Amino acid sequence: MNKREPTDTLTVGLGERSYDIVIGKNLLQRAGGLMAPVLRGQKQIIITDENIAGHHLPALRAAMAAEGLSPEEIILPPGEHSKSFAEFEKLMGKILDFTPDRGVCLIALGGGVIGDLTGFAASTLLRGVDFIQIPTTLLAQVDSSVGGKTGINTPHGKNLIGTFYQPRMVIADTGALDTLPPRELLAGYAEIVKYGLLGDAEFFGWLEENGRDVIRGVSDARRHAVATSCRAKAEIVARDERESGDRALLNLGHTFGHALETETGFGSDLLHGEAVGIGMIMAFDLSVRMGLCPAEDAGRARNHLAEIGLPGSLHGLRGIDWQSERLMAHMEQDKKVRDGKITFILARGIGKAFVCGDVALDDVAAVLDDAMAA
Amino acid sequence: MNKREPTDTLTVGLGERSYDIVIGKNLLQRAGGLMAPVLRGQKQIIITDENIAGHHLPALRAAMAAEGLSPEEIILPPGEHSKSFAEFEKLMGKILDFTPDRGVCLIALGGGVIGDLTGFAASTLLRGVDFIQIPTTLLAQVDSSVGGKTGINTPHGKNLIGTFYQPRMVIADTGALDTLPPRELLAGYAEIVKYGLLGDAEFFGWLEENGRDVIRGVSDARRHAVATSCRAKAEIVARDERESGDRALLNLGHTFGHALETETGFGSDLLHGEAVGIGMIMAFDLSVRMGLCPAEDAGRARNHLAEIGLPGSLHGLRGIDWQSERLMAHMEQDKKVRDGKITFILARGIGKAFVCGDVALDDVAAVLDDAMAA
Repeated sequence: MNKREPTDTLTVGLGERSYDIVIGKNLLQRAGGLMAPVLRGQKQIIITDENIAGHHLPALRAAMAAEGLSPEEIILPPGEHSKSFAEFEKLMGKILDFTPDRGVCLIALGGGVIGDLTGFAASTLLRGVDFIQIPTTLLAQVDSSVGGKTGINTPHGKNLIGTFYQPRMVIADTGALDTLPPRELLAGYAEIVKYGLLGDAEFFGWLEENGRDVIRGVSDARRHAVATSCRAKAEIVARDERESGDRALLNLGHTFGHALETETGFGSDLLHGEAVGIGMIMAFDLSVRMGLCPAEDAGRARNHLAEIGLPGSLHGLRGIDWQSERLMAHMEQDKKVRDGKITFILARGIGKAFVCGDVALDDVAAVLDDAMAA
Repeated sequence: MNKREPTDTLTVGLGERSYDIVIGKNLLQRAGGLMAPVLRGQKQIIITDENIAGHHLPALRAAMAAEGLSPEEIILPPGEHSKSFAEFEKLMGKILDFTPDRGVCLIALGGGVIGDLTGFAASTLLRGVDFIQIPTTLLAQVDSSVGGKTGINTPHGKNLIGTFYQPRMVIADTGALDTLPPRELLAGYAEIVKYGLLGDAEFFGWLEENGRDVIRGVSDARRHAVATSCRAKAEIVARDERESGDRALLNLGHTFGHALETETGFGSDLLHGEAVGIGMIMAFDLSVRMGLCPAEDAGRARNHLAEIGLPGSLHGLRGIDWQSERLMAHMEQDKKVRDGKITFILARGIGKAFVCGDVALDDVAAVLDDAMAA
């Protein structure tokens, strides 16, 4: 028996939809016992992808067997394509082949794609069944497993079809992150930095000291970083479950980032977290340019991402021919522009993000030009 | 300007998801003013089918124009096929072509198919947008427009994919029912009778006196019947939004009825309401056979449906070769059977339905045999 590692448990407070997030190392080996109290029926269905199944499915299966549970399994091909309408239809067919009743529990074992897809399946199967998230990427642990956003993609865009639907429980095994490719781990780390930059200067300071340990997998550091991020997001989501106000702060770095991802086709040229990292630096640069934020704070943000190994600028990035006009066009398509103004998440300093409704397009373009030249 | 007909307004009490049902004649002509207070954005999209569009779309369009509203329109082919996965995907594409934001309101103008489909679209578009129901069939007015059930069909069965999602408002124009084929009107009437039989003996007595007027379209009678039915359903749904208890009573007649519909392929050989009508009589016969219900009450139920012109028995019905064994098999596939027992909604008399968990399959089979011979 493994030594039992310490765990953090936090509750996302959403009334009757409240749920716990359990965070710690080697939790996959204890997943059966952790989930048993929230299971309402006899049937569970694990949904995962081929890559993750190879790494983690045997451990989960064993942990559930130890509790007398024998889940069904659906193993999808890896990648964003699983979030297409056609693949969603196939998935629902496979789930229905198991003749589930309303007591069934879907278990999402994987990253954001598996989580988004399984959550959407759970929210629409038999008008809503339970699901449990077992996120296996850093990005999923600190971002997509908190907040209840589910979705699939259509030719019109990503996640345009989906629901707000909360899991019954999230089990975040920080040990599972050891199997991630280093670049994917770093990309997830950018979202951790986001929570410091948007609302918690002390946490950002802690990351400046301990960020390397989080990446290296020092157990306590990693758990603290994931727990602090989840807690920050949970607090914001509890205030604004359906994204009508404060929740917009979570989009720090995302307007720029989304334009970069649109330009690179949401592929492996630029991972989501990498785009968000660059986007956050641009948002700080924009804040400095508008006279809202000390240049020193933007510098700290830039330096920390660089030290940790994340790309901080577009200049020379993966040999892509970035063009300011094209990025501006993506942003204008993404966001409403009124009288040459656009809404952004800006910052008055580290830990002091806010929604600004009237950013001049000229300032945005200038920041983009700087980022390409720098 | 038409004389303003009297209306009934009732509130479905579901906390922050509460909404009003407005019932009366010629409400379609006033729909713009009625809906204006609940609209949150600039864009509305009417979803309807070719048949209904011909009858009612010009009136709705004019009523909305009178309020300065110029809705988009999506007109689907008529029929249950629109609830397939493929048609749902097409519908979502058409909606997304209009570049809706979260303030959009979908307006379901039609019967159950349009309502189920539009409700599901609203619940999954951009993680949930508003929708308004304008039911144009009697069945939709008294059944599917109350309760928030949405759904689409798959090869595995009907409505296995869907959500519980409440409209912002229901506008039930009893005048719109004048365009219904008589057989469809009668089928909807069976669901009205259901509310009397399951929980309101006084209402059933009123129907015995006034049922013909409801069918004929006498304005006050029709409004009273629809309002009483909606109120009855709303009370049950408010107690049990997600169908974990009392809401099962609404399935009076539906276990038998569903078996009959499965046998006839859910087509025009037997309409849903017709199947429910026969199913309710069988449920009363079963209750009598089990010594739970006076034979006189079952007789009243049977006589009322016969007087109104609904089929009351399988004997000779549309020349179908009904077979008891096949119908039993459908029910056993539909419901859990334990130790030769099955769950049914039974009645201790008119207005006294209850859930019975241990009905003997032998008694069920005997009732079926009687219904074929009678």
